[in-house]
Amino acid sequence: MSFNSFGHLFRVTTWGESHGPALGATVDGCPPGVAIDAAAIQHWLDRRKPGQNKYTTQRREPDEVEILSGVYEGQSTGTPIQLMIRNTDQRSKDYGDIAEKFRPGHADITYWQKYGIRDPRGGGRSSARETAARVAAGGVARAALADLVPGLSITGYMVQMGPHGIDRTRFDAAEIERNPFWVPDATAAAEWAEYLDALRKSGDSVGAVIEVVARGVPAGLGAPIYGKLDTDLAAAMMSINAVKGVEIGDGMAAAALTGSQNADEISMGANGPVYASNHAGGILGGISTGQDVVVRFAVKPTSSILTPRKTITKSGEPVEIVTKGRHDPCVGIRAVPVGEAMMACILLDHLLLHRGQVGDRGGRIG
Amino acid sequence: MSFNSFGHLFRVTTWGESHGPALGATVDGCPPGVAIDAAAIQHWLDRRKPGQNKYTTQRREPDEVEILSGVYEGQSTGTPIQLMIRNTDQRSKDYGDIAEKFRPGHADITYWQKYGIRDPRGGGRSSARETAARVAAGGVARAALADLVPGLSITGYMVQMGPHGIDRTRFDAAEIERNPFWVPDATAAAEWAEYLDALRKSGDSVGAVIEVVARGVPAGLGAPIYGKLDTDLAAAMMSINAVKGVEIGDGMAAAALTGSQNADEISMGANGPVYASNHAGGILGGISTGQDVVVRFAVKPTSSILTPRKTITKSGEPVEIVTKGRHDPCVGIRAVPVGEAMMACILLDHLLLHRGQVGDRGGRIG
Amino acid sequence: MSFNSFGHLFRVTTWGESHGPALGATVDGCPPGVAIDAAAIQHWLDRRKPGQNKYTTQRREPDEVEILSGVYEGQSTGTPIQLMIRNTDQRSKDYGDIAEKFRPGHADITYWQKYGIRDPRGGGRSSARETAARVAAGGVARAALADLVPGLSITGYMVQMGPHGIDRTRFDAAEIERNPFWVPDATAAAEWAEYLDALRKSGDSVGAVIEVVARGVPAGLGAPIYGKLDTDLAAAMMSINAVKGVEIGDGMAAAALTGSQNADEISMGANGPVYASNHAGGILGGISTGQDVVVRFAVKPTSSILTPRKTITKSGEPVEIVTKGRHDPCVGIRAVPVGEAMMACILLDHLLLHRGQVGDRGGRIG
Amino acid sequence: MSFNSFGHLFRVTTWGESHGPALGATVDGCPPGVAIDAAAIQHWLDRRKPGQNKYTTQRREPDEVEILSGVYEGQSTGTPIQLMIRNTDQRSKDYGDIAEKFRPGHADITYWQKYGIRDPRGGGRSSARETAARVAAGGVARAALADLVPGLSITGYMVQMGPHGIDRTRFDAAEIERNPFWVPDATAAAEWAEYLDALRKSGDSVGAVIEVVARGVPAGLGAPIYGKLDTDLAAAMMSINAVKGVEIGDGMAAAALTGSQNADEISMGANGPVYASNHAGGILGGISTGQDVVVRFAVKPTSSILTPRKTITKSGEPVEIVTKGRHDPCVGIRAVPVGEAMMACILLDHLLLHRGQVGDRGGRIG
Repeated sequence: MSFNSFGHLFRVTTWGESHGPALGATVDGCPPGVAIDAAAIQHWLDRRKPGQNKYTTQRREPDEVEILSGVYEGQSTGTPIQLMIRNTDQRSKDYGDIAEKFRPGHADITYWQKYGIRDPRGGGRSSARETAARVAAGGVARAALADLVPGLSITGYMVQMGPHGIDRTRFDAAEIERNPFWVPDATAAAEWAEYLDALRKSGDSVGAVIEVVARGVPAGLGAPIYGKLDTDLAAAMMSINAVKGVEIGDGMAAAALTGSQNADEISMGANGPVYASNHAGGILGGISTGQDVVVRFAVKPTSSILTPRKTITKSGEPVEIVTKGRHDPCVGIRAVPVGEAMMACILLDHLLLHRGQVGDRGGRIG
Repeated sequence: MSFNSFGHLFRVTTWGESHGPALGATVDGCPPGVAIDAAAIQHWLDRRKPGQNKYTTQRREPDEVEILSGVYEGQSTGTPIQLMIRNTDQRSKDYGDIAEKFRPGHADITYWQKYGIRDPRGGGRSSARETAARVAAGGVARAALADLVPGLSITGYMVQMGPHGIDRTRFDAAEIERNPFWVPDATAAAEWAEYLDALRKSGDSVGAVIEVVARGVPAGLGAPIYGKLDTDLAAAMMSINAVKGVEIGDGMAAAALTGSQNADEISMGANGPVYASNHAGGILGGISTGQDVVVRFAVKPTSSILTPRKTITKSGEPVEIVTKGRHDPCVGIRAVPVGEAMMACILLDHLLLHRGQVGDRGGRIG
Repeated sequence: MSFNSFGHLFRVTTWGESHGPALGATVDGCPPGVAIDAAAIQHWLDRRKPGQNKYTTQRREPDEVEILSGVYEGQSTGTPIQLMIRNTDQRSKDYGDIAEKFRPGHADITYWQKYGIRDPRGGGRSSARETAARVAAGGVARAALADLVPGLSITGYMVQMGPHGIDRTRFDAAEIERNPFWVPDATAAAEWAEYLDALRKSGDSVGAVIEVVARGVPAGLGAPIYGKLDTDLAAAMMSINAVKGVEIGDGMAAAALTGSQNADEISMGANGPVYASNHAGGILGGISTGQDVVVRFAVKPTSSILTPRKTITKSGEPVEIVTKGRHDPCVGIRAVPVGEAMMACILLDHLLLHRGQVGDRGGRIG
Repeated sequence: MSFNSFGHLFRVTTWGESHGPALGATVDGCPPGVAIDAAAIQHWLDRRKPGQNKYTTQRREPDEVEILSGVYEGQSTGTPIQLMIRNTDQRSKDYGDIAEKFRPGHADITYWQKYGIRDPRGGGRSSARETAARVAAGGVARAALADLVPGLSITGYMVQMGPHGIDRTRFDAAEIERNPFWVPDATAAAEWAEYLDALRKSGDSVGAVIEVVARGVPAGLGAPIYGKLDTDLAAAMMSINAVKGVEIGDGMAAAALTGSQNADEISMGANGPVYASNHAGGILGGISTGQDVVVRFAVKPTSSILTPRKTITKSGEPVEIVTKGRHDPCVGIRAVPVGEAMMACILLDHLLLHRGQVGDRGGRIG
């Protein structure tokens, strides 16, 4: 048991509070001989960095990662990799009010009830700032995957903001990097910009759905019964701040299908089995099929809003609260690189687990 | 790492194949002094037992649990409790055909690709029969919870079958035990019976959504960041056979809300904080609030259907397959007691974890 | 955390009490495709079986293992292997007296203080009978090692009984299987027989030291810092009933050496590095060198003796106790196959761990 | 699995290399509300600090700990505590020679064989410098224990240096802090000083035996079968650099005793059971008895010596090696605070585990 860790052979432990001196990730179990440098990790961190446009918090954090161990002359050594990010823009005064009041939708009240003490500055440990450490760890996982499974790719994007979904007939992967929402639909990008602007100005916020797809995943990853690939993906995504739902493949919609609709029929292709569809999201019985692994998760709206809400203080007094400060009107946006990072970590972990238990004993077809 | 285990301090390892000699659960970490007997566990197993009505598989299994260890004179001793269920109705001939062909939607192909060997009889380890072991373990967890948290209750029920959802205005908890679907809506029960009958006769199957609610859960359970209560619940439910989506509280629908809609406002009640709503499903920042803990999960339609589907053999030959044998037209039905069992195990585990790390240091309000 | 488990990728959970219905081991993580049958496991169990000669307990237990899962048509499938041994000779009456009195040197008092309940029949869970389950699990590990690392061998033997050590100049491996003490020294075997006979007749017991050697272990196994091979071996051996000390290589005697004496000088042989000595016991920095892995452990004398000892009852009353019943005068004898089994499990686990994290990236010399 | 972690509920992960930018410990699971500050941790670190007298390495490291997370206004918050120590005195030139040659007795060769890459500067990850992180973590554990179990004390000291043991009749706890060897025997201290001086001047080194005693440990800690208190202590001590043997209570000497000698007879005292002796070292069946918990471990002589030894290079060439640089002639000396730290961590972990699983259900006597 480690409350702040995930993964089995590739194991990540994150640490740090929003306004403490630093935060980071202790990454254990990275294979040796993987090319790793701070710049490569920084690339991924920069995607999640706050203050990049008007749709994300205006907190100014360079989020510069420092590698403190486990890398020698540009290569992983197989020992723990410590990734540290100093907190620089802390403006604690913004948060003074919330030391006594519990913000609805936030973990203020539950941290207090659980621990009897909490660091209220910026949400302390429960701040989404913790996910920067995951993105850094994901950078290590990506480097190892690039080395071990050439051709594997992981791409996250938004498919819904508030009530507005994308139109899948307009899906264009190239669009993802061109707009502030990582949405693969140029029309949606334009519409969402307008929608979110209005929402932000009204002092409100909104939720989102993110989809993460991994291509080129070898068949055979995942360890039933409780180390299933989808089990670990569900846990990974649900552990991200503000996530309330996780889907694999058709997800909740699978409930409405009949068996004849849902069966992904199989035929034989040049390089192995080929599926007529992917309702399963690339996972059967907890094990990867070789198809795209498809995960979606819903992020609730940012709980820090300018609209006054009713709450209580530690001593039980009724009060109203308005959360000033610098907040994302849609935290789902910055959850995209976090979802990608979690996918990378989980896939690497299962690759190592499979190699450990099974090696090259997997079955061939044809 | 244990591929077939879940839980941290209360740890369950299931074992066994559908048509092997037996299956069961090794339950480690049950507190000592809990009243446990085979009859109490049998009560829960009987709810999941096959062959009880025309909507579940006609396989005849008494599913009788035998307690092999860890209980002395009717009380748990704190040592591992071994729960064994002998398989009796094995009719292996029913399954001869599938040793070479991969059934679409089933784990046949991925078990082969992963391990290079699989027990094809009834799906072997990937059969939903494995969940009987979880229900037995859940019986132990329920007994311990009854002892440690009097008043805590766990109730599961179906809220959707195929495209047909319940009408929440007709919600009647008393209905749950009165129909074969554990649906809290008498009108839905009648309609679903007709719908499922037709589907069954046509040789098809259908998916479902199950909701599990825990009442009386103390505030403070759950361990951020990666031991969050919702993280563990998501993993627990996703690990159940055929589950493709998991939701906490509003789940995927949270994405469509604004922050002002989503904030569960807090006021002070006679016995502590009271919430104006429960969008959060009883969990904030991964920690229980004291409200109802609400989890939903979607079960895909049974993949074993009489409708012919295209597939391939081990040697890559294209074939058609029809899965004869005795199958549930809606496996979601029997997933209800499984979801309850997982909820019980996870809650007990987090109760023990909290007691271990924090003891009585949690904060009071008011 | 699982209190009753050991190993990481190859994970063994034992369960069961001395006089309960059965005991066994849940073995998770065995590679698929390993030839396993009950007879092979029985071979190892028979070496530990009670009642084989006058130096071991006269309890008559066939200790027949039943494989309940994880093996299909004689091969492991990669799923959990459940090994069950029914208890048959239970004569509970022998143990009636000890339900209220605490036997000195036994765990009666600590189980009571810890759990507030204990199964007093034959020591319950704290009985050395639990080690039968380990030996069974070790049989699985041996089968997997034979498959994965041909040429690896594991041999345990006694090197000391009470104050009498072996003479290493007379070391003869062929002797080990020829005497009831598994001692590689025919002269010692004869002398110990006489010594133990006298001791047994006087109603007393005695301790022992066991050495276990693994030959043919590949270099590179073991995972610093806390997954060191010697760390796991120390835990494995110390977890065996009555063990009070564990040594690797020179062990406690290493303290008396100088650095120049202790350095195992290295030269280049035909097949890699060759060492002039093996003070290190085949492990440097927690990782195997390719030399023999050498572990020793001390077993305290059987605490169940006919000599009256002073103790107290649950209510604190002073009493004398004589432990009648059928006891080994030297439990160390039957600890030999247990030590071998633990060595097999730990080596297999580290082989899988190394394969998982490192694969074929280890460094070559020359 | 986490290769670089130990503990279950109180879980410590160490990271860092001897000559990297920093090293440290990620401490997860500390109870909330424990008074913790850098000064208190520094107190323990200073005991292990190099360069304090002529018997320890002349490397100058202030070993200043920085708390990066998990502590708010002087109290632990229940979230991960990151303890970082910057490396300052790195003089890499001292170590240039050993990048190609394997030092006998060191882990150079095994790290290479395992990982195919190693940081040769000062031994990299295998340097005993890693233990500074454990001592820092031990400082946190000590603070928590002081809070939860007032009166519990942990004391380590040397009982043997090379062939010279202490005279237990001269045992004087007050001496421990008065000499550079932490030896509780003034006469031995004087003799050892002379002995070690001569050895150091001759370019050689020597081994040692350390004993660590915990007083005031509550009865009932430890979780059979594989989470035994002595199992975890054996692993903890064996994981310390250069340790080759671990003993509990009488340790290896227990083998020479008879059952009547070894039984610690029990009587009833004013505050519970009283034992006539403590052969068991305070642990029966893996569970604490309430007596002193007594652990000893043997540290082999420092492998870095000025005496030339034969070895090979990476390419297999035979060479001689002399390890220049700044080394402890007896690394056992600085292992004393490390052993104490490991004892503190393991005891706290088991205290939390016991509280989690059992709570107040332990049995009373009398």
